[in-house]
Amino acid sequence: MSRAVRFYETGGPEVLRLEDLADDALRDGEVRLRILAFGLNRSECQLRDGSYPMMGARFPTRLGREACGIVEEVAANAPADLVGRRVTTIPKVVDVQRYGVYGERAIVPLAALAPWPEPLDPIGATAVWQQYLTAYGPLVELGRLEAGQWVLVTAAASSVGHAALQIVNALGGQAIATTRDAAKAAHLRAAGAAHVIVVGADTDIAAEAMKITGDAGVSLVLDPVAGPGLERLAAAAAPGATIFLYGQLDPTPAPFPVVPVLRKGLAFRGYTLWEIVLDEALLARAQDWILTRIADGTLRPKIDRVFELDEIVEAHRYMESNRQMGKIVVRVDRDAAGARNATGERP
Amino acid sequence: MSRAVRFYETGGPEVLRLEDLADDALRDGEVRLRILAFGLNRSECQLRDGSYPMMGARFPTRLGREACGIVEEVAANAPADLVGRRVTTIPKVVDVQRYGVYGERAIVPLAALAPWPEPLDPIGATAVWQQYLTAYGPLVELGRLEAGQWVLVTAAASSVGHAALQIVNALGGQAIATTRDAAKAAHLRAAGAAHVIVVGADTDIAAEAMKITGDAGVSLVLDPVAGPGLERLAAAAAPGATIFLYGQLDPTPAPFPVVPVLRKGLAFRGYTLWEIVLDEALLARAQDWILTRIADGTLRPKIDRVFELDEIVEAHRYMESNRQMGKIVVRVDRDAAGARNATGERP
Repeated sequence: MSRAVRFYETGGPEVLRLEDLADDALRDGEVRLRILAFGLNRSECQLRDGSYPMMGARFPTRLGREACGIVEEVAANAPADLVGRRVTTIPKVVDVQRYGVYGERAIVPLAALAPWPEPLDPIGATAVWQQYLTAYGPLVELGRLEAGQWVLVTAAASSVGHAALQIVNALGGQAIATTRDAAKAAHLRAAGAAHVIVVGADTDIAAEAMKITGDAGVSLVLDPVAGPGLERLAAAAAPGATIFLYGQLDPTPAPFPVVPVLRKGLAFRGYTLWEIVLDEALLARAQDWILTRIADGTLRPKIDRVFELDEIVEAHRYMESNRQMGKIVVRVDRDAAGARNATGERP
Repeated sequence: MSRAVRFYETGGPEVLRLEDLADDALRDGEVRLRILAFGLNRSECQLRDGSYPMMGARFPTRLGREACGIVEEVAANAPADLVGRRVTTIPKVVDVQRYGVYGERAIVPLAALAPWPEPLDPIGATAVWQQYLTAYGPLVELGRLEAGQWVLVTAAASSVGHAALQIVNALGGQAIATTRDAAKAAHLRAAGAAHVIVVGADTDIAAEAMKITGDAGVSLVLDPVAGPGLERLAAAAAPGATIFLYGQLDPTPAPFPVVPVLRKGLAFRGYTLWEIVLDEALLARAQDWILTRIADGTLRPKIDRVFELDEIVEAHRYMESNRQMGKIVVRVDRDAAGARNATGERP
């Protein structure tokens, strides 16, 4: 028996319940983890409230894909020497009903295991794959950002936003961050933004970006919002720029700015993490790139706040408040996972 | 003195006037051509009616960018041995007021000259660069079409559409052509379309494309229409597909299909010929690719109809009728440019 988070219907944070569950038997290609900590991601709020369809899941269902832990047990056909090893999980699992990691124990497929990102503690190790892999795709693999280029990172206070700011700097680029919250501006500058645009009702992001870049425009955009703002993103773009959309926080209609797209040869490119995690060669290259830069301190996960397992409802509520700057982590093993005020920084 | 087409205000085809003009003196880097024939392009109708802004032009202005002719005179700093040479013009000129080629004589900059596409006659030679360069960019240089892939070519009866069908076949791909005119279907199949979708009020292009491709979807789309049809193009696309927009025949709002773009990792990419013609290395590569395939007969310009110079108003009217299938050419020199029913095929 161990405690795990489940929910029986879609709805607000309060649908999440902490329950005692018997441990299921392992199937081929699976391992059981003792979870040290897990990370919260926006898509889990959307799965929970039903705004993001859960493929093939039946209720009650578990939740969560990003965790770190210790291998307790392996299926008969899996390498026995994994037992006792510290590992992290790559968010590549679709079936959260079976593989959800919100809990004291979780079953995950071997293919979802990843190395521990040394020298991070368990809180920091939980805040690596989703954010850095998401930002790596558009900036490194697809967008091939070059030194000196400008990148517009919208909704930059998120964990992916922080990861993007760090990767832009690692590549020698310059980041313009947007946020709706003026109180976050100084923080975003400290986190690596060369400029911050605080977006109010009358803010023209494109005019600001053009002023900042000396009318050159930005070479890449990372945007999780979509909606009517697409037009201003096109206006902020340099000729030949690519605007990566990796989410749809604004579900209102998004008129496509055909004229600037034609005139400047722009690309609007949809992107999700699945492109990286489902391609073995790409994933290996991305993991290597990220692990190297965590090891040398170039990339440092930014932890916003640590919750306890029995505070899961509050943790989801906090994510939806949009007050956070960086990653929200739930600590499961108090002894192993470090202090509640952990920073994720190297010890 | 020589005759040339000019117009004094934007408007319908009737604003075009055939006038006797004195020959301007050549400036540095220019040559004078005796025009044998010139090609009509949709963008010239749009410049004429004011729907496409003419950069820096004052009235009266000449028109046209795609012609073939014989070099009559060169500026002092230009290679004298060009005189008497048969050449074509690349549509890379912005200043149609000075460099418009609708006429018996035209001044063009040296940089706009291109080799004669052997073994074509003057009618065929006028129907090469705009159409093949436009289709080359998305299919070869940017889209990197591979053998066996499906391409959706919308509004395929245009000259660019024909060029695209030929290039898709040259690369071993398979083309699905759309047309609103059922009478053009058989012709498009003969022109290289593996399948033709005749688009009526109730036609679901995506459903048809999915049926044709066995639910795989198309890897590339070439679309000059935009407008509300973008959503169906996204629905017809395979995961990872790129949808190239190279025009905006439908200026009504184009809602951006965010969900399929995210889910399938699609790119909507604006593209114009300028990307190729203003990049010397790219242009050289493209010209070589096209000339080689014209020489061996892989690419064969499809001439729809040949007009005389004094029929220019009628020629523009015909283009706007959308009855054509392939290129509309105006023959200027009756003796040199070949028969009015020329096919553009090798002699």
